[in-house]
Amino acid sequence: MKRELGRRTDEAPEAETLREGVVAGRNAVLEAIKSAASIEKIYVARGEKQGSIVRILALAREKNIVVQEADRVKLDHISGITTHQGVVAYLGQKDYCTVDDMLEAARSRGEAPFLILCDEIADPHNLGAILRTAEVAGAHGVIVPKHRGVGITPAVTKASAGAVFHVAVAKVTNLVRTMEELKQKGVWLYGTDAAAQATIYETDFTGGVGLVIGSEGAGMSRLVRETCDFLVSIPMFGQVNSLNASVAAGVVMYEVVRQRCLK
Amino acid sequence: MKRELGRRTDEAPEAETLREGVVAGRNAVLEAIKSAASIEKIYVARGEKQGSIVRILALAREKNIVVQEADRVKLDHISGITTHQGVVAYLGQKDYCTVDDMLEAARSRGEAPFLILCDEIADPHNLGAILRTAEVAGAHGVIVPKHRGVGITPAVTKASAGAVFHVAVAKVTNLVRTMEELKQKGVWLYGTDAAAQATIYETDFTGGVGLVIGSEGAGMSRLVRETCDFLVSIPMFGQVNSLNASVAAGVVMYEVVRQRCLK
Repeated sequence: MKRELGRRTDEAPEAETLREGVVAGRNAVLEAIKSAASIEKIYVARGEKQGSIVRILALAREKNIVVQEADRVKLDHISGITTHQGVVAYLGQKDYCTVDDMLEAARSRGEAPFLILCDEIADPHNLGAILRTAEVAGAHGVIVPKHRGVGITPAVTKASAGAVFHVAVAKVTNLVRTMEELKQKGVWLYGTDAAAQATIYETDFTGGVGLVIGSEGAGMSRLVRETCDFLVSIPMFGQVNSLNASVAAGVVMYEVVRQRCLK
Repeated sequence: MKRELGRRTDEAPEAETLREGVVAGRNAVLEAIKSAASIEKIYVARGEKQGSIVRILALAREKNIVVQEADRVKLDHISGITTHQGVVAYLGQKDYCTVDDMLEAARSRGEAPFLILCDEIADPHNLGAILRTAEVAGAHGVIVPKHRGVGITPAVTKASAGAVFHVAVAKVTNLVRTMEELKQKGVWLYGTDAAAQATIYETDFTGGVGLVIGSEGAGMSRLVRETCDFLVSIPMFGQVNSLNASVAAGVVMYEVVRQRCLK
């Protein structure tokens, strides 16, 4: 196994160095919003609602940018500096594509579609590892919800070992609607559920496949689960009876790979 | 963003380090109680009486474990972290076992041995996820080097979602010597290597299996690699061409499971 580019080794930022892909401070964030820069997410210190923060919040809402409250200590960590004035923006560094681009990529390679749909993955390490596995396993793309889950932040990019720049990612506003569209386009949707009767080894993944990965805490949301064509389980033999989200995703993705390799 | 059980959900490196001898977070504490782990005392945040805390309290009473209410700030101090979800347990030490115990466990279950050997895994998240997957996949034990790699720290315990309390772990002073002994006892040793000709899907894992997991950085050390009976590869189709160590371990462990389920 080769070097993991994305591994964290340090516990805390050492000096006051602004992290890559981040803008901090009121003016800087304001200008970033006003410019064409794509912003993934804005963090505002809890309770900060005065002065130019008000304008930042209004503009962010207007441009449909996700804003999240966080403790000052967290802003310190995210930005790498303490002089952020209570506001930090993550810049988008990733070119997104559409679900149709992914289907077209599959068609042009003469392969049945192989897509990953993430339903609110919250941990950047998990989302990063899922993107990395999707890229390595040869999936045609990863679909993430626009306003839920962790988003493609620098931490995710880092945890993906850079795979995020090689795998197609689509952000969608409504995951269930996207699922319905995929079904109409001949993609079968498979959600993992520990209680499902059929194991992944009894399931045929050689057609068009959309694997739905639920969140670490609550699994798939109800509507997402109901929209799946099949619920499938990973056999489990222990006491703990659940796998880390990125490990579970890897096990299922590689069962797809195995079946397609052997076809 | 939700705080997930036993996982980090924040985007930046955390300066927080879980204290030695402590388990924090609802899943991890629940699993610790369910296992035979000796728990000194459980601290619950004042007023915390919802969700899985109810179950934790009931189980603690059943097992005669002292529970004490405390302020959240105190829990922060006891655990060394703020992401304890209102519950912290003081632990006795993890009970280790021997490799022979693992082989005996396999024999008594009438199963071919299925062991995981970790060669210097450095990241507590990876080692935790590997322990968790090993437990869930029904492996008979995990062997770690005594003086190298991350060891079974509280961070590993937490990342394992408590699985460390349910899976047998042996600490060995010399991994290569242990490998030689395993070979004499009829266990075949498989190391993963991206350059290996045979894929895991072309490999027979139905006999006695010892899976050797290399470190995230350098892979297996030379001597460990040379002591393996087989080098096997996971098929890869992307640009990145390496998987996260715990995902790779999960993919191989579950190929063992698949072959044994279908046997």
